[in-house]
Amino acid sequence: MTTPELTLEELQLAARNHALPLEALRYPVTPVGLHYVLTHYDIPAVDPAEWRLTVTGLVRRELTLTLDEVRARPVVRRSVTLECAGNGRALLDPRPLSQPWLLEAVGTAEWGGTPLKPLLEQAGVGDAAEEVLFSGLDRGVEGEIEQSYERSLPVAEAVRDEVLLAYELNGQPLPPQHGAPLRLVVPGWYGMASVKWLERITVLDRAFDGYQQRVGYRLRQEEDEDGEALGRMLPRALMIPPGIPEFLTRERLVDQAPCLIEGRAWSGHGPITEVSVSSDGGATWDEAELADQPTPWAWAGWRYVWEPQSPGRYELACRARDSAGNEQPVEPRWNLGGYANNTVQRVVVTVRAQQD
Amino acid sequence: MTTPELTLEELQLAARNHALPLEALRYPVTPVGLHYVLTHYDIPAVDPAEWRLTVTGLVRRELTLTLDEVRARPVVRRSVTLECAGNGRALLDPRPLSQPWLLEAVGTAEWGGTPLKPLLEQAGVGDAAEEVLFSGLDRGVEGEIEQSYERSLPVAEAVRDEVLLAYELNGQPLPPQHGAPLRLVVPGWYGMASVKWLERITVLDRAFDGYQQRVGYRLRQEEDEDGEALGRMLPRALMIPPGIPEFLTRERLVDQAPCLIEGRAWSGHGPITEVSVSSDGGATWDEAELADQPTPWAWAGWRYVWEPQSPGRYELACRARDSAGNEQPVEPRWNLGGYANNTVQRVVVTVRAQQD
Repeated sequence: MTTPELTLEELQLAARNHALPLEALRYPVTPVGLHYVLTHYDIPAVDPAEWRLTVTGLVRRELTLTLDEVRARPVVRRSVTLECAGNGRALLDPRPLSQPWLLEAVGTAEWGGTPLKPLLEQAGVGDAAEEVLFSGLDRGVEGEIEQSYERSLPVAEAVRDEVLLAYELNGQPLPPQHGAPLRLVVPGWYGMASVKWLERITVLDRAFDGYQQRVGYRLRQEEDEDGEALGRMLPRALMIPPGIPEFLTRERLVDQAPCLIEGRAWSGHGPITEVSVSSDGGATWDEAELADQPTPWAWAGWRYVWEPQSPGRYELACRARDSAGNEQPVEPRWNLGGYANNTVQRVVVTVRAQQD
Repeated sequence: MTTPELTLEELQLAARNHALPLEALRYPVTPVGLHYVLTHYDIPAVDPAEWRLTVTGLVRRELTLTLDEVRARPVVRRSVTLECAGNGRALLDPRPLSQPWLLEAVGTAEWGGTPLKPLLEQAGVGDAAEEVLFSGLDRGVEGEIEQSYERSLPVAEAVRDEVLLAYELNGQPLPPQHGAPLRLVVPGWYGMASVKWLERITVLDRAFDGYQQRVGYRLRQEEDEDGEALGRMLPRALMIPPGIPEFLTRERLVDQAPCLIEGRAWSGHGPITEVSVSSDGGATWDEAELADQPTPWAWAGWRYVWEPQSPGRYELACRARDSAGNEQPVEPRWNLGGYANNTVQRVVVTVRAQQD
């Protein structure tokens, strides 16, 4: 693997931002505390009694809602997989300096809340509307600019039926680190779009050009290029590393016997159509058995029985393809911000002769 | 700060083991998902219906209990602060190679369960008993030894009234990462003693000499020395870093105005008797206001109003003292395993002239 040395700044970020331990892929809905968390600034202290949501900008009626008023609206619950756009960053070489995610910045939650679309309809979006801006209460300095975390969506994305304002996670009140009291959830998109600690929705007659849209979250090779905005998640499959781990290296020890390899796969571009597994580092691939994926917004389970023929060291890998024809690359595609690196996962295992 | 370069192995551990983001010190009881988590191996998959707890070894009656039988026993709920013995490791120079904790491997939970002592009394501990061994279901390889995670307590520690077998955290069923369906909670001791995914309690007529007791969790300067076993937590105070953070460096920006600095402090050796705060990197110290500490097993809140006299860069620090007279050192005390480094926390802030 690449560029092993990390800086203290990256370690500070790795400590406060939480990844999904890969064995937690066993749960179709990720338990609270195992779902990934990325917070640009600090988790803000929000008093739900004082909190208000404002809908403003290019609307016919400005709205201000209390949390009780949000909760009194129609309720929906959706199983949604969210992945950080920076997932895979620390596997790039050279490694872009930011939150050093390896592979585990993902999770699937049962989000409960109210759909966004009827709220926008109630406010009355103006005909000249281009984008909808979502502003959070989390505040800090990034790229030398003091800011609250803000991201926009094109109007057509914002009014998709499956976009919701969530105040519940897995049937419980939203925990502080996931955006309490209210957050946006944009199924299919990288997590950056799902603004947490939401306090304001502003309808704009232009494209939002704030830091997180113009500088952050863009695919660029050079500092001075405009680049491509990130949106939907590229496909990725992850396996539960089989066997037992060595504490420090996390390398795996498995017995020489049929070995069930299980995992999950997802894409923001459509349902998963194929997962394949390699036990020779990607030289040859076998197709895994794919479970039903009741909604394209939540990951699909998959399984594969590997039969190691002899003791020794193996490199397992898995690879997903989606209905839009996107397939995970075997080699990383570098970019300046270290985004959207959906290279295949590799897991080193040592097979030992079965003990009598 | 010291030795900034981290290895890939340390990053893998930092990703799967979760620290408390320091702003979460604002909660007297840490919300699920913000409490620190350290897992030596993998989080095991445990079917609570199949699970049994066995009490065996030097006992008059061997016991086997289902989870329902454990839950039918007397219920206690205790607010307990747990801290990893390796907290502070990544601030040592040279840095011992293991989970690279900075300062945040701590949390306070409301643990619900049943006291251990009556269960041991029911089993009838033999007169020759020396220690009680707790064995978990988590399994891996460490120091080239395949093992389940196991730690012992002297009998006198195991039968302390406040030691409990927990199946609830903050009023909810114990989450997988905290040891579901049942774990030990040993108030006052570093977290290593509070064995998760507990499956067996064995009364021994000798001192346990397994890996986590004989090799791990000992204060040593040299590989070949026996060293000193770790037990109770040394005192530590942590502050919520004031102001707002820069995303990458986590350095803080505050306005020139009275600045409330708040935090928590704890010790396993007795109640906290004093917390002091420095704004000049430890050259001078002022006493903070200490809140009541209803139980010595859970952290105490503290607060201090800092009045920066001019714009500029400051190094804040805080330091706790306990009733046993232990005080945090200003300089780290190195040891081979990187344990129990309770050096004072330092937070760099930039004060800016107040904006009109």
